[in-house]
Parts: sequence; C-alpha cells; structure tokens
Amino acid sequence: MFNEYDVIVVGAGHAGCEAAHAAGTMGSSVLLITMNMQTIAQMSCNPAMGGVAKGQIVREIDALGGQSGIISDKTMIQFRMLNRSKGPAMWSPRCQSDRQLFAQEWRDTLERNPNVDFWQDTVDAVIVKDGRVTGVKTAMGVEVRAKSVVLTNGTFLNGRLFIGEKTFGGGRTGERSATGLTEQLISLGFESGRMKTGTPPRVDGRSLDYSKMEEQLGDESPGKFSYTNTPSLTKQRSCWITYTDEAVHDILKEGFERSPMFTGRIKGLGPRYCPSIEDKINRFADKDRHQIFVEPEGWNTVEVYVNGFSTSLPEDIQYRALTRIAGFEKAKMFRPGYAVEYDFFPPTQLKQTLETQLIANLFFAGQINGTTGYEEAACQGLMAGINAHRNSHELAPFTISRSEGYIGVLIDDLITKGTEEPYRMFTSRAEFRTLLRQDNADLRLTEKGYEIGLADDDRLQSMRLKKAGIEQLTTIFRRAKLRPEDVNDWLIARNSAPLREKSIVLSLIKRPEIDAVDVRQLLELIGASGEFVPASFSNETLEQAVIEIKYDDYLSRERQNAEKLTKWESLEITPMFDFDKVKALSFEGREKLKKLRPRTIGQATRISGVSPSDISILLVYMGR
Amino acid sequence: MFNEYDVIVVGAGHAGCEAAHAAGTMGSSVLLITMNMQTIAQMSCNPAMGGVAKGQIVREIDALGGQSGIISDKTMIQFRMLNRSKGPAMWSPRCQSDRQLFAQEWRDTLERNPNVDFWQDTVDAVIVKDGRVTGVKTAMGVEVRAKSVVLTNGTFLNGRLFIGEKTFGGGRTGERSATGLTEQLISLGFESGRMKTGTPPRVDGRSLDYSKMEEQLGDESPGKFSYTNTPSLTKQRSCWITYTDEAVHDILKEGFERSPMFTGRIKGLGPRYCPSIEDKINRFADKDRHQIFVEPEGWNTVEVYVNGFSTSLPEDIQYRALTRIAGFEKAKMFRPGYAVEYDFFPPTQLKQTLETQLIANLFFAGQINGTTGYEEAACQGLMAGINAHRNSHELAPFTISRSEGYIGVLIDDLITKGTEEPYRMFTSRAEFRTLLRQDNADLRLTEKGYEIGLADDDRLQSMRLKKAGIEQLTTIFRRAKLRPEDVNDWLIARNSAPLREKSIVLSLIKRPEIDAVDVRQLLELIGASGEFVPASFSNETLEQAVIEIKYDDYLSRERQNAEKLTKWESLEITPMFDFDKVKALSFEGREKLKKLRPRTIGQATRISGVSPSDISILLVYMGR
Repeated sequence: MFNEYDVIVVGAGHAGCEAAHAAGTMGSSVLLITMNMQTIAQMSCNPAMGGVAKGQIVREIDALGGQSGIISDKTMIQFRMLNRSKGPAMWSPRCQSDRQLFAQEWRDTLERNPNVDFWQDTVDAVIVKDGRVTGVKTAMGVEVRAKSVVLTNGTFLNGRLFIGEKTFGGGRTGERSATGLTEQLISLGFESGRMKTGTPPRVDGRSLDYSKMEEQLGDESPGKFSYTNTPSLTKQRSCWITYTDEAVHDILKEGFERSPMFTGRIKGLGPRYCPSIEDKINRFADKDRHQIFVEPEGWNTVEVYVNGFSTSLPEDIQYRALTRIAGFEKAKMFRPGYAVEYDFFPPTQLKQTLETQLIANLFFAGQINGTTGYEEAACQGLMAGINAHRNSHELAPFTISRSEGYIGVLIDDLITKGTEEPYRMFTSRAEFRTLLRQDNADLRLTEKGYEIGLADDDRLQSMRLKKAGIEQLTTIFRRAKLRPEDVNDWLIARNSAPLREKSIVLSLIKRPEIDAVDVRQLLELIGASGEFVPASFSNETLEQAVIEIKYDDYLSRERQNAEKLTKWESLEITPMFDFDKVKALSFEGREKLKKLRPRTIGQATRISGVSPSDISILLVYMGR
Repeated sequence: MFNEYDVIVVGAGHAGCEAAHAAGTMGSSVLLITMNMQTIAQMSCNPAMGGVAKGQIVREIDALGGQSGIISDKTMIQFRMLNRSKGPAMWSPRCQSDRQLFAQEWRDTLERNPNVDFWQDTVDAVIVKDGRVTGVKTAMGVEVRAKSVVLTNGTFLNGRLFIGEKTFGGGRTGERSATGLTEQLISLGFESGRMKTGTPPRVDGRSLDYSKMEEQLGDESPGKFSYTNTPSLTKQRSCWITYTDEAVHDILKEGFERSPMFTGRIKGLGPRYCPSIEDKINRFADKDRHQIFVEPEGWNTVEVYVNGFSTSLPEDIQYRALTRIAGFEKAKMFRPGYAVEYDFFPPTQLKQTLETQLIANLFFAGQINGTTGYEEAACQGLMAGINAHRNSHELAPFTISRSEGYIGVLIDDLITKGTEEPYRMFTSRAEFRTLLRQDNADLRLTEKGYEIGLADDDRLQSMRLKKAGIEQLTTIFRRAKLRPEDVNDWLIARNSAPLREKSIVLSLIKRPEIDAVDVRQLLELIGASGEFVPASFSNETLEQAVIEIKYDDYLSRERQNAEKLTKWESLEITPMFDFDKVKALSFEGREKLKKLRPRTIGQATRISGVSPSDISILLVYMGR
C-alpha cells in the first residue's frame, strides 16, 4: 500500500509540520502521519507566536527556510516588538495569531509541498531491526517503511487530562491519547519520564467588560517574522490586560485540596516560567495580584484566551475565581482550564542531530524531548527534519552552534544537560546573545539554509543584498564627513552636542541619543553635503548597520569569545573515548562524562558536575 | 457556574447547530454543548449540501429562517440544479462545499447569536425528575439546568468504527465516542437500536489522473439555496466522474470474508440508498460497473472525497481496488474508508414536535432518530430547536404538515412509521411533491417562520414582494392579448404554431415549448404592444408565475387533495383514546394504533397495518 519513504514524520504539530516541510523541500519523500487531518498545526495553548527569545527562534527558523515565520505573518492579528526600550539583543518579535487561520495556512503549505504525503492514523510502534528503525506500525494495523522516522508526539503519549479531582485520557481536551509507543521505546532501552503542562479556561469575549481592563495595542508600524516579502498588518486587534487580586486568590485557595497538583496525582513537573495560577499564588505568596492577558483567538471569533490563568483546579473554583477578576464579572466559560500529563524522553539520549543514540534513523523533536513552547518545538522539528533527510541520503549531519543561533543553544542544552522540567528558551541561556539578535538571523543562517537546499535562491539573494547594503552604508558612515554648518541645526534639535569641526558621520551614529530613524535623516544630510550620494536602503538594512556601528567594540569582543568557544566546540571527543583511563578526572566529572558522552569538549564544558579542571585534564590527555 | 437555560442543545452537527440557532434567534437562552469546539458543524461525510429532495429541504429550512441555506451559499465551490430536464417538482439544488469554510461559517454564525452560549464537554446523562428533563450532567461532572433539552448525538452514542477486522471506539475517525447516555435512556424506558453508516477513503488529488475521468462542471448560471441576498458563485471547481469495473470488484470481493458487515460484526442496518461499494457489488451482482464521483474538499485543499466508494473493507483491499479505478492508478490515500455503528432511538417514541413521549422537555433530532443525511438532520434540528424554545416558553407546538413541506413528510414518516434503516428523504415520499417544490418553499413556509419569530422581516417582505409579483404577472398574462403580427415571428422562431387571431398570453405560456426564459421575451412583446407596461420582475418571480400557469390544473387538483388530507390530518385523536373499546378494529390495526398512538387520523392512515376500514371505523366512532 505504501512505498518506502525517505522520512516518516509522526505528529503534525509545530515540530511535525516543520520537519515534514523541511525534509520534503530538500527532496525527501515524506509521509506525515497525524491522528486527525482536521487538527494539523493546532495551537494547543495560546494563540500567539514569538516573544522574548522565542521570537528570535522564529526568525532563525525563517532564515533557514522553515515556515513558522511566513505562516505567522500571514495569519497574525496583532504584532508587537517586545523590549524596544532595551538593547537590540533583547528586541523580540511577538504576534497574536488567528488560531484557525494558522492551522489552515500550515495545512495549505504542506499540501503545496509535492513531496509530502499524508496518512491519518495513530502510530503504535516503530519497526526496529538490528538497532535501526525501518518504519512504523499504526493502530489501523498498517506498516510503513522509511529510511528515517521523526517522532513528534507532543502531549499525546499516554496523555492524561486533569481538572480538579477528575481525570480523562487524552492529549488535548476533546481528543484522544496515544498508547503503546512509550512502552515499546522503554522496552528498547529508552528512559522516559512524565511532564505536565496546562492551559487556562477559554471564555466568551461577549461576556467581558473591557472598560475595566487596559488595552494593549499592536505596534504602530507592525513588523513581522519573515525575511521574505510577507505582508505587514494594516489593521490589528487589541489585547487587554487585567489583574487577579486577593479575593481571587482566596477563592482559588479553596480548591487547593482538590488540586491534582497539590494532592500529588500529577507526578510530572510543569513549566517553571509558564506556571499555573495556583502555582503562582503558592510560590509567590507575597504578591497580591497577577497579570492576566486577555487574548482574542482570531479576527472574527468571540473566543478569548485567558493567558496567565492556566489552571487545573476544579471547574467550579475556576469559574468562581475567574468571575472575581475585573472585567470578568459576567464571564461565560467555553471550557475550563486543565492540566495534561504526558510522557517525555530525557533528551540526553539524543545526538546533536536529534537522532537517538540508541536506535539509528530515529529522531525525536518537540515536547517528547521535554521542551515547552511552539517555537522550541518548531525549531527542533526543523532540525530533525533536516537531519532525517540528510540521514536518509547519507549526507553529513547539519548542526547549528551555540554562537550561531538560539537553535544551537537549545539543542546543545537539551542533549548535554537534559531537563527535569519543561525546557523553555530565554535570552539568558545564550552566552552570546548580543550576537544572536532577531535582526540578524538571516545574516547568521540563511547561507547555511541555502547550502543544504532548504532556503531558496530568493532568500539567499535578498540576504546578500541586505549584507551588501550594510557594508556600503558602513563604508559611507566611516568615510563621509559633515561640516558643522551641514548638521548642527539638526543636532541641536535632537539635544545632541553640535560639532566644532568637520567630523566623520560614524562618530555621530555612536551617540546614544541618535537612533536608526535619525540616521535615515543623517543620510539625507550626507547626500545634501554632496560628498556621497547614498542609494536607498531598506529600514532593516539601515537598522542593522546602525546596530553594528553603535555596538562595534562590544560585538567584536563577543565574536572573539565565540570563536574561542567554537574552537573547543569543534574539538571532538571520539565516541569510544574511555573516560576511566583518565585517572585524574574527578569522580563526579567522570561519571557525568560517561553517562552523557559529550561529542565535543564544548559540550563537556556545559555539563553540570564537570569542572574546569576536568576540562583541562581532558585537553591535556587529548594532546592540547 | 451556570444559570438555568431555556434550551440546552447537545451536539453541534447540522442538527445541533440549527437547533441552537433557531432557539437563540427566537429569544431562548441557549447552551450548545459540544465535545470539541474545533469541530462544530463538521461535514463528516461528503462535502456537499442538497441533492434530490434534500435540496428542497434546505430551501425549506431557509424559508423558515434556518441557516443551512445561507451557510451553504457562502461556502460552496460548485452549484448544480439537478433534474432540470424533468418537471419543476424534480428540480433539486445541490452544491459542493468547502468543508473547512462550511464549519467556520457555522461557528461564526452561532457566535454572532447573542443568546447562544457554548460549553465544551460530553453529556453523560440527562437529569430527570418526575418524568421531565430538567438539565444534563457532563463527563466533567458539571450539571446544567434547562427548561428543554435537545439531543443531537449523531453517530457518537457508543460509536464504533470498523475497518476490515479492526474496530475502534469513536464517533468519527480520530475522535471519541460518547458512552453512558444510551444506557441511561434505556433505563428510563426508551427503546434503542443500532444503525451503521460509512464513508469512503479520502485521497490526495495530486495523485489522480483527471484526463481519464469525465469532468462535471457546475451550472453555467449557478443558483443558490437561500431566498435571501446571499452571493452567487462567480467561479467554480469541477467534480469528476469515473467508474469501477469488474477487476475492481474482484479485488473488493477478496476482502469480503474480512468485511465487518458480511461477517456479522456490524449488527446495525446501513443506509439503503447510500450503500457501501461492497454492498453494491453484492446486491447488484449483474452490474459490471459503478459510478464514482470525485469531489474536491474545498477551494484550495488537495484532499478529495471518493463519493460512491464508501467501504469498511480492510484498508489494503481498499487501496488495491481503488488503484484499479481509471484515473486512480497512482492514488495516494489520506485515510481509508470505514463504517461506524452507533445507537439510535426508534423515532416512533417521539411526538410531532420531536419531543419524546416518555420524558417531557426532552427532544431528539438528527441521526439519533434513525435518519441519514445532513439535510434530514438539519431540518429536524430546526424543528426541535423551535419546539424546545416554544416548550420552554409555554407556547403551542409548531408543526409542518405533509402538504406544507418535506420537513412535514419527514417528521410524520418518522414518528408514525418509524424506520428500520437510516431514513433518507426522496421526492416519492411526499404525496404532493408537485406542491413541495424548491422554487416555492418561501411561499409555503416563510410566513409561518415569521409568525414564530424565526424568519426576519426582510425575509417576509421579500417573499411578499415575490408573491405580489407573481400575482401581478399572472394577471397580466391572463388579461394581455397579443395580435398575430405582434408575436408570430417570435413564435415561428421557436417552432411554435403562429396565432391566427388575437389571443391571451396565458395560452402561449401553457405551450410546452415555451419556457420561463422565453416568457421574459414575451413580456417585452407585451410591453411593445402597448397594452400593459409590465414592471421588472426577478427571474425567480417569473419562473414561479410560469410554473403556476403551466401546471395550473394539476396543481389545483393537488391542492384540493391536500386540503382533504389536512382535514383528516387535523382531526385529533385524544391521547387517552382507548382503542380496545373499538371492538370493530382489526387485530393488527388495534395493536399498531395502541403502540404508535397517532395524534391525528392523518397519522393513523399512514401506519402500516392500519387499513382504510380501520380508519372508517375510527371516524364513525369519533362521530364523523
């Protein structure tokens, strides 16, 4: 019934969709298996993409040729660049999405990919022969062969939903769970664990009183995620902000003794930085209020997502507490919040390609690896899809280093440190976050994406155009000089010290009070002074050039540090390396090294328990 | 958590959506409970609305103020008026729909209804007190009170899916089933049974060779369902026709011994007129081919519905047989066909309002009553919603007679005759089908819909405008005379006998070779002749007037017959009537009358086993 595929992708969430699209685009024959073709690319949690560090990931996915950025751009209802008031490393794009359109757009995108086939079914088991995966078996009893298999099972593996004292089988509310696969993987030697996550209630926007909330508008000039020519928003929907108070907390506390978390019925750890409201009350007992973001679910729907109010307390408690929140007095729930507990596989069992160490040709991506978040899932799916394709075609692994992208940081963190609780990306996880900015993901990654056949030629050309523009601009700014009479009126108007003598423009740009918008005017002054006649540059190009000039010293130092890291990073430890032979290693260091088997010295440095002296000893032993 | 609602509707398919919308529009507070808010108004079977007799039902729903027609118009991708070559009673509108848009549009429509609330959950039980329903209990443990409850559970009650030798719990593939409710209803005294239905495989349109199929275009001037000002299609997608052959049948036969139907694992009867392909081969062994309609699932999707190939044979057999069909040689399946078996409640347990006889305030609509088809479900939902609203507000029942609409025929058939197999509408089920045409549903029903507060004023006014137009036109045609010199050239051009003397236009219109389009030209000739200057009339008005003139004698006779029926129809038999007292009744007649307890003599006449002499005896006994 089926020919052998190059790649089978199991699951069609953010991870599965990126994996299938990437492998298919690069030329693999792909079968995407999903439990329900009507729920491809469902946003199970809040209707939004991006955010701090996460927005950078979406930009990186886009730069490599993935689709999350394009699809977000086409389906968003609001865009905001977070942290604009901070340095450019902190700027983080974020959008609200139309949940239905987002899913529809992903399905359309995949259907347009000629190499992607679909099959609606549940995978019960992988077919393993001589330590290699050769295909999958489904609940329907079908066997499909493939050279590589990517598992992206999300919260569906033995998924259990919890609301107060009640519990149901399921990966999402109203849907089923997937059983059997975990048990088989354990029998093959994998370690597994339980994690949990949760969602807030959904409410009827018609029942809310927005006059009691703060309006949160989208950006005046909304940006977007993709470096391609996707459209920008011309109209936007607002979000709203309100707060819990002590009365709300008191009601919630009444339900604590019926909480599945506090009574121990949920064993898995939840996402620390996206906690349930009961967790927040419990852990931050001194805070008398918590922020609630009221997010519309789309352009037309009245459904509203109560972000910040994730909970698995009994639904009557949820309702009573919810209706004590300002603006929610008459709220009608569409459904209560719930927690979901599911199986994951500690990601220290993976290679950097996201292939498992234990079984060849088998890749894991997304929540199955213990992560949380759409963006974290999507970028893993992308990398697993790329590497599954390359594995099936006997091509070298494709990896991204910690200094090249957040994607590199994420995967390196996962495979070397593992994670006990749902792993979420933060800018602080990156050593060189000033280099890993949302504005330069294309400069960092598009060439790599192009080389492997994922980013297309248009993308490469527009990146090169931008790069050339930046160089041209930088040259102009380094060479062009302005006389006091050319520029002093303009400087004074900006509360910036006037010039006393002819000066290079570069020195003006470095002034903190001059920003990229100002620099566009400076360009005009340069033109008027007649020395250079600059061509027209896009805002993105200009911004990039200004950032590079303003932070030049700092960025150069960071690049040097990164290069050092790269040296170590790339210093390989042979897979057969016998750590027992190196007597001088500390006991704990040796144990951790033996367990986690870092591929490189770089990875070894980041293992907790492996000390700097252990690293020095290793380096000596390896002849450095 | 919930206040008491006027009406709770359980299930959000075609029946549930119409019920919720109708009750909400008329002013009831409504709670619509669905297992999954993402799957409201899913077209579980083929992506199409209307067809023979079914299209008439959609027009009737629309005329009353229901939404199926409007939503179909907004989301269709092809429209055809079936049976145009036959008499106007047979004309039947049918459209292909965009499956996703249809569901989306229904959800938007319900969300715009200020009286409709939503709750995502599964109803486990109804709350019954003193023989009356007072609310429902859900899987989540919530109790919600209501004055009336409408159950529209579709195929979900103890739903089981079958593919070859495999079976799964579920109401649709990839979804769960609902358990507990049937058992409770049985414990309350209801009789239940099992029925089955099935769907064909879905395939990837990119893998089909359309050059080997016949293209089926939409109508050149596409019509629509709604009498309101919904848009007509300006572009359309084609369907395609291909055929099975004996080689295909031979492959399918190989699977018969693994068929859940032929091996007796499915007990329920399936829809006779929408049989599975294995049924067709079995029952029509002499036919060497069967038609397959290849229907696109929407504007953009590549998914294709293989109408006519419904099957629950093993998926490998499905695949092998499918790929022997012309154009399907390289077909890729998205999912196999399957059968679903589910609980229904014989509809003889219902009143004409669709309220159950056993439990007050409890209404059943759709497949739970043993019907098949979206349109059959939708019209029951509409009628149950209307009557639930009226029940909750202590208003008189709202019914439609057999001579007023197919909806009346359907409900009367169900409650008096019951059904052993999924009940589908046909024009032959209506005694007065020449009266129940798709072109006059508004004239038949809009006034009734307006009186109960469902059809709005716009709808009433435009119906009245049309009615006045018809009368005006008919008057003109009756009075206006044309001289031979005014019209003979025109008649000769149409191969119609020339006039010898001045004649009334009516006589020309009655000629079979003159159709409604010709009559528009006749109107111009009348204008030119100067006797009357007709106003402008819509095509619909003109068509209606022409039909009434052409079939005048026949329609008048039918109307007289219908009036006679109405007289009997309305002659009530008191609910306490003791049939045992009427000794002269035949044994079988008495038994059936006691069991089915017809509300009127009209219903009694249609009970199989009740003879005309039984009816005469009853009439005598009742003093007629």
